[in-house]
Amino acid sequence: MARQAQNIGLWLVGACGGVGTSVALGIEAIRRKLTEPLGLIGHLPPFKKLELAPLDRWVIGGHEIRRTTFEAAAREMYEQSGVLSPEMIAACRGWLRQCDRNIRSGTVVNCGPTIGRMADRRDVRRKRSAAGWIAALADDIRSFARRHRLARVVVVNVASTEPHRQMPQAHKGSKALRAEDLSRLSASSLYALAAIEAGAGYINFTPSTGIDLPAVRRRADDRGIAYMGRDGKTGETMMKSVLAPMFAARNLRVLSWVGHNIFGNRDGIVLDDPRNKETKIRSKDQPVREILGYRPETLVSIEYVKSLGDWKTAWDHIHFAGFLGTKMALQFTWHGCDSILAAPLVIELARFTERAARDGRTGPLRHLACFFKSPMGVREQSFVRQYDALLEYADAAATDRP
Amino acid sequence: MARQAQNIGLWLVGACGGVGTSVALGIEAIRRKLTEPLGLIGHLPPFKKLELAPLDRWVIGGHEIRRTTFEAAAREMYEQSGVLSPEMIAACRGWLRQCDRNIRSGTVVNCGPTIGRMADRRDVRRKRSAAGWIAALADDIRSFARRHRLARVVVVNVASTEPHRQMPQAHKGSKALRAEDLSRLSASSLYALAAIEAGAGYINFTPSTGIDLPAVRRRADDRGIAYMGRDGKTGETMMKSVLAPMFAARNLRVLSWVGHNIFGNRDGIVLDDPRNKETKIRSKDQPVREILGYRPETLVSIEYVKSLGDWKTAWDHIHFAGFLGTKMALQFTWHGCDSILAAPLVIELARFTERAARDGRTGPLRHLACFFKSPMGVREQSFVRQYDALLEYADAAATDRP
Amino acid sequence: MARQAQNIGLWLVGACGGVGTSVALGIEAIRRKLTEPLGLIGHLPPFKKLELAPLDRWVIGGHEIRRTTFEAAAREMYEQSGVLSPEMIAACRGWLRQCDRNIRSGTVVNCGPTIGRMADRRDVRRKRSAAGWIAALADDIRSFARRHRLARVVVVNVASTEPHRQMPQAHKGSKALRAEDLSRLSASSLYALAAIEAGAGYINFTPSTGIDLPAVRRRADDRGIAYMGRDGKTGETMMKSVLAPMFAARNLRVLSWVGHNIFGNRDGIVLDDPRNKETKIRSKDQPVREILGYRPETLVSIEYVKSLGDWKTAWDHIHFAGFLGTKMALQFTWHGCDSILAAPLVIELARFTERAARDGRTGPLRHLACFFKSPMGVREQSFVRQYDALLEYADAAATDRP
Amino acid sequence: MARQAQNIGLWLVGACGGVGTSVALGIEAIRRKLTEPLGLIGHLPPFKKLELAPLDRWVIGGHEIRRTTFEAAAREMYEQSGVLSPEMIAACRGWLRQCDRNIRSGTVVNCGPTIGRMADRRDVRRKRSAAGWIAALADDIRSFARRHRLARVVVVNVASTEPHRQMPQAHKGSKALRAEDLSRLSASSLYALAAIEAGAGYINFTPSTGIDLPAVRRRADDRGIAYMGRDGKTGETMMKSVLAPMFAARNLRVLSWVGHNIFGNRDGIVLDDPRNKETKIRSKDQPVREILGYRPETLVSIEYVKSLGDWKTAWDHIHFAGFLGTKMALQFTWHGCDSILAAPLVIELARFTERAARDGRTGPLRHLACFFKSPMGVREQSFVRQYDALLEYADAAATDRP
Repeated sequence: MARQAQNIGLWLVGACGGVGTSVALGIEAIRRKLTEPLGLIGHLPPFKKLELAPLDRWVIGGHEIRRTTFEAAAREMYEQSGVLSPEMIAACRGWLRQCDRNIRSGTVVNCGPTIGRMADRRDVRRKRSAAGWIAALADDIRSFARRHRLARVVVVNVASTEPHRQMPQAHKGSKALRAEDLSRLSASSLYALAAIEAGAGYINFTPSTGIDLPAVRRRADDRGIAYMGRDGKTGETMMKSVLAPMFAARNLRVLSWVGHNIFGNRDGIVLDDPRNKETKIRSKDQPVREILGYRPETLVSIEYVKSLGDWKTAWDHIHFAGFLGTKMALQFTWHGCDSILAAPLVIELARFTERAARDGRTGPLRHLACFFKSPMGVREQSFVRQYDALLEYADAAATDRP
Repeated sequence: MARQAQNIGLWLVGACGGVGTSVALGIEAIRRKLTEPLGLIGHLPPFKKLELAPLDRWVIGGHEIRRTTFEAAAREMYEQSGVLSPEMIAACRGWLRQCDRNIRSGTVVNCGPTIGRMADRRDVRRKRSAAGWIAALADDIRSFARRHRLARVVVVNVASTEPHRQMPQAHKGSKALRAEDLSRLSASSLYALAAIEAGAGYINFTPSTGIDLPAVRRRADDRGIAYMGRDGKTGETMMKSVLAPMFAARNLRVLSWVGHNIFGNRDGIVLDDPRNKETKIRSKDQPVREILGYRPETLVSIEYVKSLGDWKTAWDHIHFAGFLGTKMALQFTWHGCDSILAAPLVIELARFTERAARDGRTGPLRHLACFFKSPMGVREQSFVRQYDALLEYADAAATDRP
Repeated sequence: MARQAQNIGLWLVGACGGVGTSVALGIEAIRRKLTEPLGLIGHLPPFKKLELAPLDRWVIGGHEIRRTTFEAAAREMYEQSGVLSPEMIAACRGWLRQCDRNIRSGTVVNCGPTIGRMADRRDVRRKRSAAGWIAALADDIRSFARRHRLARVVVVNVASTEPHRQMPQAHKGSKALRAEDLSRLSASSLYALAAIEAGAGYINFTPSTGIDLPAVRRRADDRGIAYMGRDGKTGETMMKSVLAPMFAARNLRVLSWVGHNIFGNRDGIVLDDPRNKETKIRSKDQPVREILGYRPETLVSIEYVKSLGDWKTAWDHIHFAGFLGTKMALQFTWHGCDSILAAPLVIELARFTERAARDGRTGPLRHLACFFKSPMGVREQSFVRQYDALLEYADAAATDRP
Repeated sequence: MARQAQNIGLWLVGACGGVGTSVALGIEAIRRKLTEPLGLIGHLPPFKKLELAPLDRWVIGGHEIRRTTFEAAAREMYEQSGVLSPEMIAACRGWLRQCDRNIRSGTVVNCGPTIGRMADRRDVRRKRSAAGWIAALADDIRSFARRHRLARVVVVNVASTEPHRQMPQAHKGSKALRAEDLSRLSASSLYALAAIEAGAGYINFTPSTGIDLPAVRRRADDRGIAYMGRDGKTGETMMKSVLAPMFAARNLRVLSWVGHNIFGNRDGIVLDDPRNKETKIRSKDQPVREILGYRPETLVSIEYVKSLGDWKTAWDHIHFAGFLGTKMALQFTWHGCDSILAAPLVIELARFTERAARDGRTGPLRHLACFFKSPMGVREQSFVRQYDALLEYADAAATDRP
């Protein structure tokens, strides 16, 4: 029972971005019953039996490259996008300041110029070897755990998308990482290695490489880490993974699927750099082909339109042929607040990962596929089937309990 | 082998409407390889093992209340809606004329004035008792089977939607039908009873009552009929049964779901009569509530806009609340040709029903739920789960074979 | 110069509704430079020369049937619809309270049960003859003018839409109003007569009858009142009056124009009553036919969906035929906050009316047609042409000045 | 009267493309009363008095770079896009073959590789100097006029969009064209010079440079040519020039205007080449800024999606701020057949140009601005105002007649 009361840490990489800020504020707002736990699927009946760690046991910390606070970030979201009400921010001020004290400076190694330009926090540009960075970042996590006497820590990467990089040749095999390989890694992978080093669970919510290199995964597997990724499935791609199975199950041939996304948050500035955008588009374009089993014409764009703030608006035009070759069309517009859609997924990923770690599970948590655009180790892209896999896991895990 | 070669009958109630016409033309066009079998799910890999009766074994007949021919009806669709190309109609003319010879006059008993006004075929208004109509309609089906030496017949109701009627009290129990009860039935139920009488499989593709009265179902069960219904799931409602599970699985609360449908085919004229429309709207509004488990504000309209012809255009606006109560919106427009979406479902329902009858199955074919808005005997409304049930059936049925 | 400094009164009928509240708050927020004067067309270059009365000379009062305050109403809008920020409300609290002191009880005579149910203010249901109501309401306006030493008052009706009523026979001619005629008038016309009695300018921003009865207009003309109406053109209808001229000028034939409106503010509750809705729909359906010169199929719906709050969302589907009869489609969705769109029009109507009264103009102010769905005395429905008429007026009026 | 009966020539550059084919077929189909003259604005009442040359006096010829015929091109449009019915094509076959006999080989000088790859007609790649090409092309036009005893010829460029080119320095002034300057011109300008040489009226319906170089325009002016351009305003840009004035006239600030266009005709293949696309986008992005008088965020994309054929589908998202800075949105989707929208504009441009030439007008025909995205010599971009200018011209021109 004493152990039950022990707290758990959620360590956010890119802590004061829109997602991290919504997570930090939201956990407290729900705890204080200022709002219902909407978006948190762990609260749905089938998952109750899993006994996920309740919100009041979570402590938040993280790495950040910008000089800011959770409160300032929250106010900025309210002013630019009309989300996170001033009343809620005021009521949670004390907690947000506690969280601020757990923020440490991150790194922008190999993140490209657009992310680099945002980094104004002390120590962010310090000259360090890759190994030096890993050690320092891991230290931050370990001392966070010590300071708060945490039973466990889950690291979730919610930082901006890094430029797309060819995997260094050495990383394609499963060989150990040498110093020269390390130097070619970008920040997301250094954070992943730091999490492994610190023995924390690890979730890559971004399209960046992170843990997804054979040598890095091998190290995670060796160290018995539970991990999963990548690229949270929040909006347009979730729609794709829900609609494409419908076309398949009706034998309607998708001729073309065009998706245009516009939005104006900080993530948008980063994705406006074509190098960073490529990483994202690769991740968004996959599900349709995977589900249909053929390659319709596809087109995906993501573009920065400042005025929209955090409100991502997507227009998808799906042109399909039915009986006798008749051409028809489905169009949808999705108007969702990106950070607000992502935040509850991040919380639940942390809770499911903590539960898996508690059970001694290691390796990729394939049952979490429904949370990701490119789920590691999973080919199934149909959303409902991915969700069914999570339900099955819940049944099995609940029964397994001694 | 001789049995294999025996033909099978598809008897369409409302034969020369848009759906029936597309079925008749489409079967031949696919047989002649003028077009691919798009929309026919029996051609998908998981169903190949079921050995559904191939298209070249099907013969078409049916009941109709209007004085017309398949060719005239097909040309009308081309002229008003730009579907069913003149080349295809010309190439299939011979077959369409054969089908015409199998058309017999139907009935408009208790169908209301709007359907009544369309009925200009000889004998349609003949004075007959309900029992007399059932006998005559059953005779039509039986002589069709005899004339073409058919192994089996499946009756599919694709006629216009009848006015909504309170079920006569007597029909609510499972008592036998007395003459006075029969007189209160509307045409769709007389057709159903005729199909039962003739020993044919029966599918109700419309929202009309048809077989869906306890006493009628009991007679079908007594006679060992395989049947299913009701209201084919072709467009907007299919979308609902695909999207609602997504909101549920993300714990996003649907606040309101508004759906406006506009279209201009003959079905539209009938639905423009508020009595007939009520039957339809009841059927369209159910799935969302069933899947979500609560009642969001809902609004469904179906309206006749002549200029659209067979092209049903639906706009759905789904307003939902996510994390921290944030309100977001999904909108879609569905632009599909109604008859063209329905026709392949009708063909496959006939093939699956024939297969079930061949296997000696009787009663409601619950595994066909994914084809219907209001599937008989099935509460599951999630499209993917309904489809999974069909896949399971296919695996089981294929294995059961001796 | 002394006269220049004299204040002007804006008397709002239905003062604490969404529109009135936005007007009251907005005038002060712009005065305090908390926000820019967006939406106020009097600030556009072509109208500067008109020397409309500046915002700091306006004093606000009005009639209301509910027991509420401007601040409470503003907070309700923020909570339900996310408009009118708490910061703005706090900054303008003093002014709002001043406005509250100028609110008097209105009447719900002949307003139907839906509006009636909302009326909980003291004296609203007092038994009075029509003439008694007119005298009392006029007294309220006159004492407001006296108390604040106002140079002029403009009365603007922004109350809920009344049920559609057949005009009493007597009102069709231009005869004087007798007591028995008066008793059949609904509240909007009593307010209009009170404004006339008080010598105030009068604007009917609603679809209710108001001043638009021959005998009432004659009294206004006799008394030298400047007036205009009716039904402010804020959203979907403005779009119609902009798009229909395009189709006409390209000789594209509009086959059908379908418009579905959903929204959830108090006005929505009133319009959910079919009696009140009819008044509105008549007003929305006119412009398309007037501009095109023929009658395409049209369909307009307005429906109450609570979750949307003040955010009116309209979907319009315009089906048209071009060269060689080819059918094409334009669809739009309009997502606008109704009160926020209306408020600046109300302010400018008051300022333009004050200017006209200052110049000694009487009768219908036809140059204000671009503000209305059903402009009194004007057939031109093309928005741009209506706006050009306003520009012409501005040029002429500025030149006329001595 | 004898003169009245004389025929007039319409010489199409890029004759057998979608636009040219629709023009050729449509003129005959309307003459034969197979269809109404929809889309032809010369048939509207205000233009009747202009006595534009009736359709039965027009003869069609043109330049083409592909080996094809009008009938083949028309069938291709029917098969790929479902427009131009087979019945219509069959009924007009004789006329189309007559038109075919007036087709001559064009040129692809400086048109870039994408257009170059399409050119398979004899003589298209003949080695000739620019002056040689101009002489040859002019000869084609002159002998067409002679052969058919034409009173006048109007040349309309409806060829694919050429790559964007920096204007050669020499062309910026109004100096005469030297041989070395000529060699840098692309095909569209050679065609323009050939039209000038042949004394024909000239219309540039494309975004290519054509006549729009100072030295070329000077030659046209010297030779007394009536001309106009450029880039026909058919769909999304027409919408912009209609909607932007609405925002301006309501003092609503457009924050961002995003427009995504997808389509799949031959023009689409050409625009898929970024060099050609740039020419187009420059033309589409102008009107919004010009009308509003400030620069909102804008984004325009045009992308090739083969499955759509000639059906251009555009999604525009307009984000705007109103009263109190409230952000709202208008979205539209335009679904139009590009060639079918363009063809009647081409016919009427030819008729208006012929009328101007008949009246002895020379230079840019500014009254035709409403037909163009980038009207030569006209800054007014509001569609209704441009149209009003055409109405004024019609009144004046009709009165001027002796």
